[in-house]
Amino acid sequence: MDFTVETATDAVAESFRGTEDRRLRAVLESLTRHLHSFVRETEPTTQEWEAAIGFLTAVGHKCDDTRQEFVLLSDVLGVSTLVETINGAEGGTENTVLGPFHMTDSPRRALGDSIDLLATGRPCVVSGQVLDADGTPLPAAEIDVWQCDEEGFYDVQQPGVQPPGNGRGLFRTDDEGGYRFRTVVPSHYPIPTDGPVGRLLEATGRHPYRPAHIHFIASADGHRTVTTHAFVAGSPYLDSDAVFAVKRGLITDFTESDDEREAERLGVSAPFTHARFDIVLAPEPEVTP
Amino acid sequence: MDFTVETATDAVAESFRGTEDRRLRAVLESLTRHLHSFVRETEPTTQEWEAAIGFLTAVGHKCDDTRQEFVLLSDVLGVSTLVETINGAEGGTENTVLGPFHMTDSPRRALGDSIDLLATGRPCVVSGQVLDADGTPLPAAEIDVWQCDEEGFYDVQQPGVQPPGNGRGLFRTDDEGGYRFRTVVPSHYPIPTDGPVGRLLEATGRHPYRPAHIHFIASADGHRTVTTHAFVAGSPYLDSDAVFAVKRGLITDFTESDDEREAERLGVSAPFTHARFDIVLAPEPEVTP
Repeated sequence: MDFTVETATDAVAESFRGTEDRRLRAVLESLTRHLHSFVRETEPTTQEWEAAIGFLTAVGHKCDDTRQEFVLLSDVLGVSTLVETINGAEGGTENTVLGPFHMTDSPRRALGDSIDLLATGRPCVVSGQVLDADGTPLPAAEIDVWQCDEEGFYDVQQPGVQPPGNGRGLFRTDDEGGYRFRTVVPSHYPIPTDGPVGRLLEATGRHPYRPAHIHFIASADGHRTVTTHAFVAGSPYLDSDAVFAVKRGLITDFTESDDEREAERLGVSAPFTHARFDIVLAPEPEVTP
Repeated sequence: MDFTVETATDAVAESFRGTEDRRLRAVLESLTRHLHSFVRETEPTTQEWEAAIGFLTAVGHKCDDTRQEFVLLSDVLGVSTLVETINGAEGGTENTVLGPFHMTDSPRRALGDSIDLLATGRPCVVSGQVLDADGTPLPAAEIDVWQCDEEGFYDVQQPGVQPPGNGRGLFRTDDEGGYRFRTVVPSHYPIPTDGPVGRLLEATGRHPYRPAHIHFIASADGHRTVTTHAFVAGSPYLDSDAVFAVKRGLITDFTESDDEREAERLGVSAPFTHARFDIVLAPEPEVTP
């Protein structure tokens, strides 16, 4: 049978009938149907199709060990947040995007340690508890934290300026499910705009900024892992995050304090900033065979 | 408003409202809606999303000056043929895929020249006319031709073995709209399988073969350019082209001949093969303001 605009989609979907992995087959058939619908709806010219191929190629060529332009593309199209939202667990802290900067392992650190290795910024203490959905503290939960500095840069963006692991830490909660680390208040920042995704934002009149936030991945045995952010309340761009990641429940007060005794207790000097960010982990879903 | 599975698509589509180029805005809004529908339907896990990002990145990294893996991906998903079919003109020779090997300029050649620079194969003469939709010959039409050799390889795949420009030529039709060149009969061949698209085909139990064909782009002033193939009748894989490019009207007889006088007239020696492939160009569409 001839390949026509009408028969094309079934012909391609049918070509996947020999796929052993049933999940892969279902995903590819769905991809084919939605991708063909998009093409039939927009009717791209050959030149537009070539431009799209060129764009995707440029996105791929921009990816290296410290830059993930396809994650950025997924982010600015809202796909990353959509995937995380779909995978969010009822009753737990809300998921949001992983982002492109979780590319190096966070160094293991002790509770109370500083992740601000340069120690040139105004001190900030972030603490909280990891809890289950009933409010029971979860000891020995793992918390992976990463953030940019006060200028809006991650360590991997400034090799030679920031030491590797700056702004990153892997912590384990104490017997009360508590965690605490010292840092600086992160800045809002633009996502990298020197690549094809930056050109896309420019062509569409969109700004590249993200509101200030600290990334968290929290996990504990028997519970669903959550990938989320603590957003800094009052930060610019909370209403127009370039990657659509803000959820109201994740906006966190970062409170300034002059209390010297409290500062001493937390291992910093006044004035300092303090944020409390508790994380609730939903139970692992029942496995249905 | 919070970003939810329900509000996500409108939020992202709305973010393109400032796009000056109306066509770009429409394409991005449509892309957003279809891409989000695909994600909502398949509900990928975070690990699956990461695998998809990894796949696209590998496709990008495989692209270089002589390899276009995103074109291959578009081809095996039937998107390339779909785009060409949508852009095909009623009444003209049918369009089909450009393919990934139209990456170097074809050398200008005189009618009757050979594009088989190695001259080691069995000679084949391809000739035909370029006509308008009424059957009137089109003199001075441009014909860009490229093909693989008898082993199934294009020049760019075998640097050092095939000279650049082997199997390629740019011809201009004579006063009767005629063209003629010497070559070898191309072989069926597998699309390149040493990259991520090859792994996709393997995982889905699909073979990578294309039936034997010669690529043509034909253009003439006042007419729509056609990107097409002459498929070799009787070639394996005409029923299961890996890139879904076969259309019955493009299947062409390549006839063997022992006629020594005819051979001499065509500038080859008997036995030889002859194919006649006429190309009809539809008129340029009226420009609607």
